[in-house]
This record gives sequence, C-alpha cells and structure tokens, in this order.
Amino acid sequence: MRHLPITLLAASLLLASTAAGAADTRIPDAAVHTAEQLRDKAMQDDTGYQIVTSLTTEVGPRIAGGVNDERGRAWAIAKFKELGYDKVYTEPVSYPLWQRRSEHGAIVAPFPQPLALTALGFSAGTPPGGLTAEVVKFDSLAALKAADPASVKGKIVYIGFRMTRQKDGHDYGMGSAIRTGGPAIAASKGAAGFILRSAGTDAHSRTPHTGMTMFKSPAEAIPAAALSNPDADQLERELAYGKPVQIKLELDCGVVGQFTGANVIGEITGKKYPKQIVPIGGHLDSWDLGTGAIDDGAGVAIAMAAGKLIHDLPQRPDRTIRVIAFANEEMGLYGGRAYADQHAKDVSQHQLGTESDFGSGPVWRMSASVKPQAQQAIAQIAAVLAPIGVAYDAQRPGGGGSDLSQMHAEGMAALTLTQNGTDYFDYHHNANDTLDKIDPRELAQNVAVYAAFAYMAAEARGDFGSAPGAFAQDGGGD
Amino acid sequence: MRHLPITLLAASLLLASTAAGAADTRIPDAAVHTAEQLRDKAMQDDTGYQIVTSLTTEVGPRIAGGVNDERGRAWAIAKFKELGYDKVYTEPVSYPLWQRRSEHGAIVAPFPQPLALTALGFSAGTPPGGLTAEVVKFDSLAALKAADPASVKGKIVYIGFRMTRQKDGHDYGMGSAIRTGGPAIAASKGAAGFILRSAGTDAHSRTPHTGMTMFKSPAEAIPAAALSNPDADQLERELAYGKPVQIKLELDCGVVGQFTGANVIGEITGKKYPKQIVPIGGHLDSWDLGTGAIDDGAGVAIAMAAGKLIHDLPQRPDRTIRVIAFANEEMGLYGGRAYADQHAKDVSQHQLGTESDFGSGPVWRMSASVKPQAQQAIAQIAAVLAPIGVAYDAQRPGGGGSDLSQMHAEGMAALTLTQNGTDYFDYHHNANDTLDKIDPRELAQNVAVYAAFAYMAAEARGDFGSAPGAFAQDGGGD
Repeated sequence: MRHLPITLLAASLLLASTAAGAADTRIPDAAVHTAEQLRDKAMQDDTGYQIVTSLTTEVGPRIAGGVNDERGRAWAIAKFKELGYDKVYTEPVSYPLWQRRSEHGAIVAPFPQPLALTALGFSAGTPPGGLTAEVVKFDSLAALKAADPASVKGKIVYIGFRMTRQKDGHDYGMGSAIRTGGPAIAASKGAAGFILRSAGTDAHSRTPHTGMTMFKSPAEAIPAAALSNPDADQLERELAYGKPVQIKLELDCGVVGQFTGANVIGEITGKKYPKQIVPIGGHLDSWDLGTGAIDDGAGVAIAMAAGKLIHDLPQRPDRTIRVIAFANEEMGLYGGRAYADQHAKDVSQHQLGTESDFGSGPVWRMSASVKPQAQQAIAQIAAVLAPIGVAYDAQRPGGGGSDLSQMHAEGMAALTLTQNGTDYFDYHHNANDTLDKIDPRELAQNVAVYAAFAYMAAEARGDFGSAPGAFAQDGGGD
Repeated sequence: MRHLPITLLAASLLLASTAAGAADTRIPDAAVHTAEQLRDKAMQDDTGYQIVTSLTTEVGPRIAGGVNDERGRAWAIAKFKELGYDKVYTEPVSYPLWQRRSEHGAIVAPFPQPLALTALGFSAGTPPGGLTAEVVKFDSLAALKAADPASVKGKIVYIGFRMTRQKDGHDYGMGSAIRTGGPAIAASKGAAGFILRSAGTDAHSRTPHTGMTMFKSPAEAIPAAALSNPDADQLERELAYGKPVQIKLELDCGVVGQFTGANVIGEITGKKYPKQIVPIGGHLDSWDLGTGAIDDGAGVAIAMAAGKLIHDLPQRPDRTIRVIAFANEEMGLYGGRAYADQHAKDVSQHQLGTESDFGSGPVWRMSASVKPQAQQAIAQIAAVLAPIGVAYDAQRPGGGGSDLSQMHAEGMAALTLTQNGTDYFDYHHNANDTLDKIDPRELAQNVAVYAAFAYMAAEARGDFGSAPGAFAQDGGGD
C-alpha cells in the first residue's frame, strides 16, 4: 500500500470495535459462510449459461459500432432489469468507427489458390479492383523491423509466426504483437499490404482470426489481413518453390467516422456503503465473425450471473456490486478507458475489482494487488475458492482484466482470476467463437468464483487499498 | 461365384501343370516375398505424401468442370509421366456442369443472424434479391416424407439430423441420404427451399459440408444448402422460441450446360499378360471448398504411389497395374460410370480391383468378393497385410470403392480396403479438407497396402473370378 486513503482510516476506526487487528481488512465469519453457500449454489446454477445463450442467440455478433451494437446494449439493459438489478444505467463511450464490408483474397501465382483470410480491425481497404503484389516473408516481427525498406517497398509483407496451445495462452503475447504492430512497421517501410499467419492455435481450421491492428492514423493505414493456419501453410508451401508468389487482396473496409456507444452498468446496491463498489464485468462487444460467446459473452454472463446470485440473497451486501458490460474492448479498450476517465476520481471507492475476458474455461489461479493489510482477507477469499480448483499465487500481482486494467493503473485494488485458456485461441476472434464452445459446468465454476469473491469483498471490514496511484509500480498481473 | 466364366476355366487349365489344386488361384512364394518387401519399403516411403502435396499445392480445389478441371488433368498426366509410368492416356467423361458462384444466408427473424452455409451440388439458384421464407423443421427424412404438403408449401424445409463419429463412418448413410434425397422430396411437396444440418461430424466448426443432391431435372431443382453444425444449433435455438423463423438464402449457382472432362490413366505394363489388369485408383475431382486433400487427393496419391513402387521393382509384374484418376466422382460417379461403360466388355480382364476414397486414415479391414477358388490367394494377400494392421473379414463382400463399384456390378472381382474414418467426416466436403489433415505415416500405410495387394493380384496364378455378372447378388461391400 502506497497511499493510505482517508476513507480507509475512517473505515478502520469504524471497525475497530469489532475486528481484531484493527488495521487489517478481514471478512466476517458470517460473510465467509454465506460466500461458501453462494459458491456451492453457483456451481449448480445455470444462470450464467442462460445469459450467454440469450446474448449469442438473440443478438449474436456485436462488433463495436455495428448494426448489433444498439441491439446488444438494449439486450444488456433488459437483461439486468429482468435479473432484478437495483440500478441499471449507461455511460457513453466514443471511438472511431471501423467497418468490415467484404473480404476476399487469393494467391494468383505461381499456383492460383483461394485464401481464407480476414481483414484486421483498422485495416485500410484495397483500391477498386484489389491489390495484387508479390509476397515477402518474415519469420518474426524482429526480422521485419530489421528489414531494408527496399526489400519491402510495394510488396505484401507476410509474417509466419505459429502460436501453440498454452494453459495461460502466453503465446498470444507474440501473436498479438505481430498483428497489432506489424502492419504499421510494414507501412513505414513502404509495403503495399500486410498479412500474417493468424494469431490462433487452431492449426487445422480454415477460420482466420481477426483482431485490431494499430496505425498512427487512418491515412497511414495499409490493407492488413490474417490468413487461417492451413492457408498460411499453403502460402509457405508455394513460397518454398522459390518463384515469386503474387497475392491479390480485395478488402472493402475502413474507418468511416466516429461512433458513440455505451458501457451498460447494473448494480446491486450495498446496504451499508452504497457508494463503495465491487466492480466486475465483461465486454459486451465482440468481433463480427462469430457470435462472441467466449469473447466475451462468457465474461458478461459470468459477472451478470454472479450479481444475480448475490441479489437473490436474503439481504444486500454491505457494498455495491457493480457489473459493467463494457463497450468496444476489441478495438482499443475504449469502454475501459471511458470508464477510467469517468471514475478515476472515485478510485478509492472501488473496493476490489476484476473483469472476466479469457473465455469460459475454469478459473485455476488467483493473484491480487492489494495493500499488505488486506492479505488476510485475500487469504480468506482464496480459502473459499480453493475447493473449486483455484490456487492462490501470492507472488503474482493482480491486474483487473482488460477493461479494468485502466482503473488498476489509476490505483484500484485488483484481482486476476486466471482461466484455463488451453483452447481459447482456437476460437478467439474467429467464426468459431460460438455458444457450443462453452461448457455450462465450467461457466458455472466461473460464476461461483466471481459471486464468492465479490460478495466477500463487499462484506469485508475495511478496504483493499484502492487509492490514486496506489499500484503504480506493480506492472499489472494479466 | 455365380457364373463360372470360360476364361476362368481356360486359366485353370493353363495353370494345372504348375499349381497344386489346379482350380485354385495362388500367388507364387517369390511374389509373396516381393510383396512383403514392397510393403516394408512403402511404409518408409513418402512418395504418396509428395504426390498429394503436389496436387493440393499446385492445383488445389478441383470441382468437376471448374477452372481447375483441366489443370488437374494436366497435373495427373505430367505426374504419371514423371513417375515413369509406361503408358499414360485419358478417356473422356461427360456430365452436366453445375457451378457455384456465390452463396450467403441469414436468419432474418426473430433474431437476425448470419448463417455459414453452402449450396449443395445441383442446387438451383435463388431469384434476384434472394429467397426469404419461413423455416419448417423435420427431425428425419421419414418425417419429411410423411409430411402433409400443406405444411411445407412455400417454406424452407430444414432437417436436423446429427451425425456422430464412427470408425467406419456409417452415420454418413443417413447424413448423405438426407442431403441427396431431401431436397427433391421437399420440392415435390412445394417447398421453396431446403436446408440441412451438414452431413459432417465436426460439431464445432463453422465450415458447412457441401455434397451433391439429386433432382429429376434442373427444372425441378430448388435452392438447397447445408448449414454448419454450430449454425444448425443456432437455428434450432431460434426455432425453440416458438416464433416463426424466417431465413433468407442468396445462392448464385446452377446447371449451366454440359462438360467433357476425362479419366486420366497410367499403367505399369504387365510383362506376361499385359491385357489383364489390376485396376486401382482414386478420384481426381474434389469439392471446391477445400483443396481436396483427403477427398480424394489421398486416394489418387495412394494409387499413383503404389504403382510407382511396383514400377521401381527390377522387373514388371505379370499383369498390368492400371491406376485410374477418375473424373467427377462427387457429382454422380460420372468417371466410374464412364469407365464401366467403356470397359464392361473387358470385365473378365480386370483381375481384382478397388478404389481408395475414404481419406488417408490407415486401412484396418479387408474384405473381398472373389470366386471361391481364389480364397487361397486372398488369404495370402491378407497374411501380407496383417502385420501392418489390416484384418481380413471373410464374412463381408468387397465392393471396389465408389468409382469401381460399377465395374464390380458388371462382374469385376473386388476388394474393399476399409480405412479408419473416425475423423473423415469432420473434413469431408468442407473448407477444412486440406493437406494438414493427412498424416504422412498413415498415408504410407495405405500405399503399402495397395502396392502389396496389387502386386500379388498381378502375379497370381489364375484369376479372382471376374466375369460378366459374376457378383450380381453380393450387394457390394462399401
């Protein structure tokens, strides 16, 4: 803990008469017991699965600013109300509007082959009639960075990095770095276009993985697309013949203006400290190729269902449970950034938060960034979660998840609840992100984790150390 | 054996002086020994994998009559020559030309959702602006057959049969029956269109499976398409809301005329009985969505490589090895039928034949339809194949595989070499039928089986009972 906030001092004093070790954040035994009951009920409950089924069936693909953006928000508002949340509201989120209209690609020489590919978010469109150019291959982002611009100018740059399955999905670090950073580097060297082997682990599926890339401005954007893994294999086989390989890209896409959507928020109002909140959530937007089931209908459903289970208790918890369905995570964390812009001034009121945004695999690890005096409460949370397979790792910081990482950077105490992501990058950002990928029992385990932790955080005697700049040096834990 | 042919009697008399049990077909010990060496060499040889790599990379998708039809034939002619085949020629095959140009579909009510679907071969196109109609669901083909036409008229019929994985792929019997027969039944009852849950076992992939359907004439055709399994799930979830579900189909496809392609044939000429042939093969055409690796680049490669290994022996076998790369199996066995039309008169010259057309999984079972006196030779073949995992099933007939089934019906003695098809229907007829699905070692086992059997059949003292109408009652074994 770096900055002891006034509110914490006040809370500590208030609790001094009832708690042993006045400066410590503890969770009362009765609250721990209730959390255990919540956990066990949630493990048998299908509310989360019903919510994600409803979202993916009744709305489906939810690209930020697309035709389903408003339908998604309307769905979230209606669902919070149907679930009995005490307060439902929205907060505006603005961002550049990128649209995908159509996309085709093919190898045209030496051996013509159609290519299963998809444009990256913020890709430029190709000129009328498409872009045909020779491919130049790099094995890594470093190799592209080191390349002589003359070797790249006017060509389509291809990077062939191959992700492998990992429980913690760490190969996505490089996969997403190539996708996010590669096109701008290629553009800066005069490349006509950029393609990559999809940042995905489904080695055998013709379903390319989209995802955003970054250019300094739309004016500097070039056409950029991802090939499915089998199509990347095919391209590499053609390149191995040693003859020039020409590709034609036809991408009709681009930035068309600005859009204002919204974070949709539902609250279970705390009975004792209604202004102190436990923020949890997921992001409501998805990519357009699938129905956004694992990314991130699951996260929205986990958080909504956890709040609903807390709502169904005989009485409200001491603090408010705030469930946030974030806007536009996919194209730049806009929902999370807008939330932080609006709520950074209230960071000390944010008790302990985290977002679910890594699919629906079971949570297997918990880590936390809290003040030292809150370690006892963290240990109490960990003890409640241990029986359902969650191991506490005291050596790692917590990061708050993608959309709450900004609030953590502002000083919010944060957990990281790491899910098993072994198959997450098979389906992430591609057409196969559909409901059938979610195991209802695994989703229920997530709901149990979120319901139990959120309830305990809301009932703790004292806070977890949120304060402006409190965790500036921990580097995040996601 | 039902009709003892004259040629068999003659052959038996010829062999009487050298073979014990004059009427029996036996394989000389030296030939068995050579077959064992061929088998063992083939298990370590990658010729088959090189061939299918070349075909899928240099040609790719090969829909019958499409832009790659001629490229495929040119590839096969060149490849036979490159492999050193003694004789390479083509025989014309004519058929109606069906084209797929574009395809889109969506649920438009109650909850709009894009649908991953693909038109079936011989589907009609939809009118300009597409076809929008209400869906009526049936659980089985029998239920559709029994339906009151009034319940179907003007609607889009949907059948939701779900295939499961089987080693012998037997669920495809019903899956293909629905795809092949369903649209015409729906059309006869006045349906506006037909869709089915893909005849495929990849429950989680947004890759619909095409395949041909049958109408009495193009004039009676209606639009007909397959949904991917996750899309069929989505449709069924929408139907479960109990509200009318409207679908829009936009299929630009249809029969545009007649096309003449060709079977491409390579032969290793027999040194003793050059006119007596051992026919093996695969089909050169594929569907257009993938690159036709498992269906049926693998079969072409297995047969070509088997012939090549026999070619590389110090001397030619007694009889000719005829490798046939059949045209247009997919849209009605046209290559196999053309071959039978041309060669039925020579059926007695066809020693023992079979086509490979079930992917690249290892052969695990052999069955045969031969004359009783050839059982000893079949036992010899089975003994050579047993060490590489092939069990002989004496209770089953052999059928010759798809394109040689016509010749078997004419009286050709036939094997069935059953491959492990557990995952075949994950990739069959869809975009995922690409080279990465082939395990080179499994493909090599197939080559070993074909090389060893074909060589032994070519070296047998006597024939296996091929004669006009010889196996009219065995019902086939595929």
